[in-house]
Amino acid sequence: MKTWLPICTGLLAAWLAHASPSGWEPLPDTPPVPADNPMTAEKIELGKQLFFDPRFSSTGTVSCNTCHNLMLGGDDARPTSMGVHGLTGPRNAPTVWNSAFHPSQFWDGRADHLEAQAQGPVVAAVEMGMSDLEMAILRVRAIPGYRDAFARVFGGEQPVTVANAAKAVAAFERTLVTPGSAYDRWAAGDKQALTPKQRRGLDTFDRLGCTGCHQPPAFSGPHKPKGHFAVFPFHDGAYVDRFQLRADVGRQAVTGRESDRHKYKIPTLRNIALTAPYFHNGQVATLDEAVRVMAAAQLNIALSDDETSDVVAFLEALTGEFPAMTLPRLPPTLGRSLPVN
Amino acid sequence: MKTWLPICTGLLAAWLAHASPSGWEPLPDTPPVPADNPMTAEKIELGKQLFFDPRFSSTGTVSCNTCHNLMLGGDDARPTSMGVHGLTGPRNAPTVWNSAFHPSQFWDGRADHLEAQAQGPVVAAVEMGMSDLEMAILRVRAIPGYRDAFARVFGGEQPVTVANAAKAVAAFERTLVTPGSAYDRWAAGDKQALTPKQRRGLDTFDRLGCTGCHQPPAFSGPHKPKGHFAVFPFHDGAYVDRFQLRADVGRQAVTGRESDRHKYKIPTLRNIALTAPYFHNGQVATLDEAVRVMAAAQLNIALSDDETSDVVAFLEALTGEFPAMTLPRLPPTLGRSLPVN
Repeated sequence: MKTWLPICTGLLAAWLAHASPSGWEPLPDTPPVPADNPMTAEKIELGKQLFFDPRFSSTGTVSCNTCHNLMLGGDDARPTSMGVHGLTGPRNAPTVWNSAFHPSQFWDGRADHLEAQAQGPVVAAVEMGMSDLEMAILRVRAIPGYRDAFARVFGGEQPVTVANAAKAVAAFERTLVTPGSAYDRWAAGDKQALTPKQRRGLDTFDRLGCTGCHQPPAFSGPHKPKGHFAVFPFHDGAYVDRFQLRADVGRQAVTGRESDRHKYKIPTLRNIALTAPYFHNGQVATLDEAVRVMAAAQLNIALSDDETSDVVAFLEALTGEFPAMTLPRLPPTLGRSLPVN
Repeated sequence: MKTWLPICTGLLAAWLAHASPSGWEPLPDTPPVPADNPMTAEKIELGKQLFFDPRFSSTGTVSCNTCHNLMLGGDDARPTSMGVHGLTGPRNAPTVWNSAFHPSQFWDGRADHLEAQAQGPVVAAVEMGMSDLEMAILRVRAIPGYRDAFARVFGGEQPVTVANAAKAVAAFERTLVTPGSAYDRWAAGDKQALTPKQRRGLDTFDRLGCTGCHQPPAFSGPHKPKGHFAVFPFHDGAYVDRFQLRADVGRQAVTGRESDRHKYKIPTLRNIALTAPYFHNGQVATLDEAVRVMAAAQLNIALSDDETSDVVAFLEALTGEFPAMTLPRLPPTLGRSLPVN
């Protein structure tokens, strides 16, 4: 019976969202900020440098931005990411844009916040490939410009620590917000902001109950109750085999619980038109097909071509405005380079 | 006797440079621009997008900026570069900063200009790994934003071509200029711009004849006569084996001429403090050691510790001012991704 819980919670949330016109909220300009990691301009700049710096991967070639490319949709446009030595992992890189609004991080939600998330890829063998976090920090510490920046931002005897590096990266990531989509303008009162087709798509999206999981404003999982995981795929069907949707056990690998088998954090739909290919394994190449898969796998519904195309139009209305960003200068090693392999 | 020619030309040029105080020229703000590729703001912006876009490598992970990182010294801080699938090539990535001032491109000078250079890495198996340039252009053409930009910049029936893409990238690269170094300010008349140590280093650099090859203002090869190649290493010695300096035949692989054996384009020394490790094979880790190697291998001189440290100080005075640059937004594929491997 447990397997019904997510869909029931989903339907309830969908009803709640539908019942209240205020359920269609625009994205706030700023996400929640934890009390122990306040945002400052210098910390954000340091985090940005660390985010773009490839020198903390074993080969010196992979930075956060490699898989979460801020010039693209905050992802890497690949089915699964490619880290050091051309190694690939099992999952599709989630977008970093608006990730600060998510109640947990990674597809399986194994990190509660961005500060925890930021540390994972550094030591993942198929991502940045460092043997341990301290090795990465030794490299940061070897660069005078970073030593100075950490001292200014964090103070203390030895400010260049894993925890502080993660705080800086997380602070930067909390600036990666894309408000101002057609949907947001509509939700803020500009009823002309959505085209009639996008508006039909929104209604279809709502009527089908998609908002049960993909709830405004971030269109990721609802925060309260903590129902931000869902079984995917929920229903059987041709898509399951075609796209190997059950090859990955999902959150079960984190908790060991049978009830978490094939459960995933509900991903945001913001900027989804920019982040093909789709799903945890990146096996679905187009947004069109992804919409059909979701209807079939979660709702056991075969959408018509018109419905599909309307929903795609609505999803395209979730593409936000990307903040202008200067390219950071990364502090030099001055006449020497870090050892890489 | 031919092998004496480069050093004689070098000494002559050194004498000429020394004889004229105007030999110490500051870097111009703009490099030469070919008549058939005029600079326009839109072309430069398009070239910048292409430069940063990894989607034109076979794996979708390697852009021009991967090996010529504009956030670093315009290189990748590795001994030799790492391209698709973790493959490595035989040579160290030269800096792209100020490359527009060089009389030829690549370590072996096999491209006469940036337009020709830009095409090489796309189809190099160990770099961007595309099977041919047309395959890369098909990917560019598949992206609506690029189609529009090429049409605006180049016009014509089918503006998305290899030649036009190369022109755009080259136009962008001609903006990658770093004037304003301590040396440049000194050369422009501010005699306090160099510290006494840097000034001693400049004198040592000049006295030894380094300017014979590394001639101001770009400190790369002299343009006229076309003496911008030199044999390296010229003299035998312990360094040759230790750093495998003769494992690569250099320009001979391009021309087939025995006289081009171990010849290389004279690299710029601008921003050299930011581009460790050093030489065509990246086997020398520090600038300090690189200076000793050059003195021994080219001039058969063992520098004292003081001389070495003075020359390093002078070379550090060649670190320029890097232009502020906005991060480009790369045009999206909208709901689909390009096929990658």
